[in-house]
Amino acid sequence: MFEAHFQTFEDPEGGVALTARLAAFREELLRARLTGFVIPRADQQQNEYVPPSDERLAWLTGFTGSAGMAIALLHEAAVFVDGRYKLQAAQQVDKKAWSVESLIEPPPEQWLGEHLKAGDRLGFDPWLHTFAAAERLAAACAKAGAELVAVDSNPLDAVWTERPASPLGAVTVHGIEFAGETEADKLDRIRAEIARLKVDALVLSDSHAVAWTFNIRGADVSHTPLPLSYALVPKDGRPTIFIDHRKLSNSTRAHLEASAEVMEPDALTATLTTLAQKGASIALDNATAADALSRLIASNGGRPVRSSDPVALLKAVKNPIEIKGTQTAHRRDAVALARFLAWIDREAPKGGLFEIDTVEALETFRRDTGALKDVSFPTIAGTGPNGAIVHYRVTRKTNRRIAVGDLLLIDSGAQYEDGTTDVTRTIAIGEPTDEMRDRFTRVLRGHIAIARAAFPDGTSGAQLDTLARQFLWHAGLDFAHGTGHGVGSYLSVHEGPARISKLGTTPLKRGMILSNEPGYYKADAFGIRIENLELVVEAHIDGAEQPMNEFQTLTLAPIDRRLINAGRISLRELAWINDYHARVRREVMPLLDDEATRVWLQAATEPLAHAK
Amino acid sequence: MFEAHFQTFEDPEGGVALTARLAAFREELLRARLTGFVIPRADQQQNEYVPPSDERLAWLTGFTGSAGMAIALLHEAAVFVDGRYKLQAAQQVDKKAWSVESLIEPPPEQWLGEHLKAGDRLGFDPWLHTFAAAERLAAACAKAGAELVAVDSNPLDAVWTERPASPLGAVTVHGIEFAGETEADKLDRIRAEIARLKVDALVLSDSHAVAWTFNIRGADVSHTPLPLSYALVPKDGRPTIFIDHRKLSNSTRAHLEASAEVMEPDALTATLTTLAQKGASIALDNATAADALSRLIASNGGRPVRSSDPVALLKAVKNPIEIKGTQTAHRRDAVALARFLAWIDREAPKGGLFEIDTVEALETFRRDTGALKDVSFPTIAGTGPNGAIVHYRVTRKTNRRIAVGDLLLIDSGAQYEDGTTDVTRTIAIGEPTDEMRDRFTRVLRGHIAIARAAFPDGTSGAQLDTLARQFLWHAGLDFAHGTGHGVGSYLSVHEGPARISKLGTTPLKRGMILSNEPGYYKADAFGIRIENLELVVEAHIDGAEQPMNEFQTLTLAPIDRRLINAGRISLRELAWINDYHARVRREVMPLLDDEATRVWLQAATEPLAHAK
Repeated sequence: MFEAHFQTFEDPEGGVALTARLAAFREELLRARLTGFVIPRADQQQNEYVPPSDERLAWLTGFTGSAGMAIALLHEAAVFVDGRYKLQAAQQVDKKAWSVESLIEPPPEQWLGEHLKAGDRLGFDPWLHTFAAAERLAAACAKAGAELVAVDSNPLDAVWTERPASPLGAVTVHGIEFAGETEADKLDRIRAEIARLKVDALVLSDSHAVAWTFNIRGADVSHTPLPLSYALVPKDGRPTIFIDHRKLSNSTRAHLEASAEVMEPDALTATLTTLAQKGASIALDNATAADALSRLIASNGGRPVRSSDPVALLKAVKNPIEIKGTQTAHRRDAVALARFLAWIDREAPKGGLFEIDTVEALETFRRDTGALKDVSFPTIAGTGPNGAIVHYRVTRKTNRRIAVGDLLLIDSGAQYEDGTTDVTRTIAIGEPTDEMRDRFTRVLRGHIAIARAAFPDGTSGAQLDTLARQFLWHAGLDFAHGTGHGVGSYLSVHEGPARISKLGTTPLKRGMILSNEPGYYKADAFGIRIENLELVVEAHIDGAEQPMNEFQTLTLAPIDRRLINAGRISLRELAWINDYHARVRREVMPLLDDEATRVWLQAATEPLAHAK
Repeated sequence: MFEAHFQTFEDPEGGVALTARLAAFREELLRARLTGFVIPRADQQQNEYVPPSDERLAWLTGFTGSAGMAIALLHEAAVFVDGRYKLQAAQQVDKKAWSVESLIEPPPEQWLGEHLKAGDRLGFDPWLHTFAAAERLAAACAKAGAELVAVDSNPLDAVWTERPASPLGAVTVHGIEFAGETEADKLDRIRAEIARLKVDALVLSDSHAVAWTFNIRGADVSHTPLPLSYALVPKDGRPTIFIDHRKLSNSTRAHLEASAEVMEPDALTATLTTLAQKGASIALDNATAADALSRLIASNGGRPVRSSDPVALLKAVKNPIEIKGTQTAHRRDAVALARFLAWIDREAPKGGLFEIDTVEALETFRRDTGALKDVSFPTIAGTGPNGAIVHYRVTRKTNRRIAVGDLLLIDSGAQYEDGTTDVTRTIAIGEPTDEMRDRFTRVLRGHIAIARAAFPDGTSGAQLDTLARQFLWHAGLDFAHGTGHGVGSYLSVHEGPARISKLGTTPLKRGMILSNEPGYYKADAFGIRIENLELVVEAHIDGAEQPMNEFQTLTLAPIDRRLINAGRISLRELAWINDYHARVRREVMPLLDDEATRVWLQAATEPLAHAK
């Protein structure tokens, strides 16, 4: 009845079978006179979702998480992952070949310090590392008396015989009715930023930036409508887009050629070389530009200027058309969510559902809207102890029966042409325990503290993050992830530069969309997360002494009232919950046509009374 | 009846009379072939309170604030101050000679960019700037095609004919009964830090660090018992202290010589030169070491290593004896505060008091304890509109009558041998307005949110800062200063490295003392600030999943109940207020011997009822 088109549940390849690959790779290293090599998870553009042709880390090690790195020396090898992937990595890699180490604190450079010997030659592919990453590696090598060697061709690719071809997803035009601003107007604003940077040209090494600037979308990677591509924007004159022509229809090509030259991807290095030879200063994005670009420009007499891609901030601030689009997308998504939550409440207590069933059902309800382009990331559906794994992805092997007494955590999102969604709800199956209700209520109070916050214009996400944690902290609890990330407009569900986290120093600007998703995870027991997307808007406050902002909630789905301990929340918090549920009912009920869901929504949005 | 021994109320010299000094200074610049000069507020050690012999900025410009800088070019000159000093600077400097500019955002370097011409030679005294500050100046000069010139002798000193002599305050031993740790044990811990830095020696350029390390105190600057001095601690062997011998008694000298060589201050450069010539790596403190020290080491073949002075963190974490001392000091201070607050409540409504009367009374009550060594900073006593000036200092000219209907803001502190205090109370004189009560209640709720906070070990002050602002933000209000600063142990009332502010990224450690002082300032109307000192302690929370900390309030003085709108606070907040007042009554009442104050304290600490 339900099925998933945009996500799979296959188990990744097991670790032990991959050991032969490591042996072959080491032989290749010896041929290249290297004593080690660094294998990042990244592709050339530091994408979150990389095409199969760039899944080098997974191919070599078996580790399939979305962040990580491996370093293979001739006699030792390590996979480096952050806290959320520690368990997964330990299960996926062959522990006889690989040790699992820390990616963040301490960083891999510390491991290098302990394992490199003087005279070692550590290779790396400068196309797969940012310049900052390359510098950290170089410093670690220098400290150990070893040499960091930038290779011309990647030795891993030499032994990866069945490497998939690069993707050729069709490029489409992102119409002005969704984009809200013409390419010409966007290019004018980008040129103003280039003037501010005092450079001759800017490389857009982030495909998201190319997609936003030229109002195109693509299909090269999973879950994000990215057209893998580069662009070069000179301070005056026409920009150039570097993109595989096989991805372009005649009409798409005409769209692009109206505002840019269109060239093949491999023309990028020649174009930059020519520009560099004229002594040009060329801005490169710290976050996505490959070290190889910086080397290319410098070695040809140009001046690489490291900066933050100014397009990232332009793109993060949504225009009125994009905002109207995301509001429409969220109302559409709300219909699927209401049908899904009603279905869960009906079916799950019978005891026959598994996690994969919920993923298939939710995707099906979203497809039923007729507008679903993709899910915005693989749904996280974790019941009971699986809910405590923050970045859990269900596979046929881990697929768990949803039992009465479980908390079911579902984090999911959709890609619609008018907007990208991301929502998490935690659902009580049967009667929750007092502990579950206490934890849920603390998480909810944190969520509400963010949702209700007013803050001066210029406030950063770092300044708001603690509001979401304070009630957990009072009980000695916390959650080990940020409170929120930026979200794109029919683009990446994880978008910079702003975020709500202690590291989020970018000021929040009106028009930005951020998630608000505090959680709590009790290992081997249950997980809780409550996530809405929030739009930054001006706050109109009587008597305010300075420009103020607040959040307008975009997501419209009931929060499970059975998990709220109404005796432990303030009257202000209660009013927020009841107001939110009244709004969900008001906006979503008229869009529902099946009676069962209507009855469910009516009950799920009843006002809560304050318990003393 | 009351008098102040440790603070004065004189007006600073007026601006216009100083203009002749600027003219003479410019002639001296021409003689030195300079086209401009930078005059920081700092002395050689970046002290907060500088001796009169280093008040160059005030001497030249008339501006007497505690932070600032001046730049005199041949035809233009500017004084740079931060937001809190903008009004004061505009009143103090001769505006025909000086423009008042921003010190922070934008920084003086921007002004330099707009006013320097190619070929200009901007002088600076490398003893009065940190290396980071010198680099910023050098970069600004380079950008303008000008040259930054480090002078050997300061041209301002050449024209400052009546410059006071350097201070010769007597040095005393800070006994183990107060210090809680011997010099030998402290030096062992410092040497472990030197080993961690992998350097040959560490320069203690911060006199506070010298005082803490060697358990001495001094009397060279106002309000902080500092012995101006340097020390050099080698990784092995005896350290050397550089201090004017005229400040040492025989017994103090014997105390120092037990753990160090004692040399005259001018031996520092020769000693560092010798060490540098052997190729030594020498750690210098980013925050207090003069650029001149770095130049001296580098030019003699040594390696200056920039770091944070490790002593700053060691010193900030108080040991059990210091903690017991500060608790005793705060109880002693509480007696003076109770007498003072009772007196204000009796006398102020009669209408005959002026701000200076309150400063004199409070200092007198503190002297009556028999233990007062100094005030820890000049008391801020601002009534009505003066309360809205954040760093107000009352002078004979600004001295304002305390009127019925005023809010009176008093921020003061004491130096006792066992501890340093800092406390602010805001007092309603007569009936406060609804607006005053609303604002006070929002500030108080922020204060309580900090006081009640529990937070994971490793949390920084930046993560807590917003808790203090959230209720003001809801009304579109804020306060333009940090929420809290570190406090020393019979040492500086403003002590790093931790603070509660969006810039306070140092983790809060158990044993640190910080102020908790949110406020609200309505220009030309009133000011509110509520400040207690807080000790970071371990929080014992049932079921906590990680090590947690919380604050233990040190300050014991009633908070004005007449200003609290009990209908707008939560039951948890009400409980905090009533618990705090019960504790103040319990701990302070037994120490009071006058009946009038006892009666007052009884009333001032009555529990508040919750108003609906």
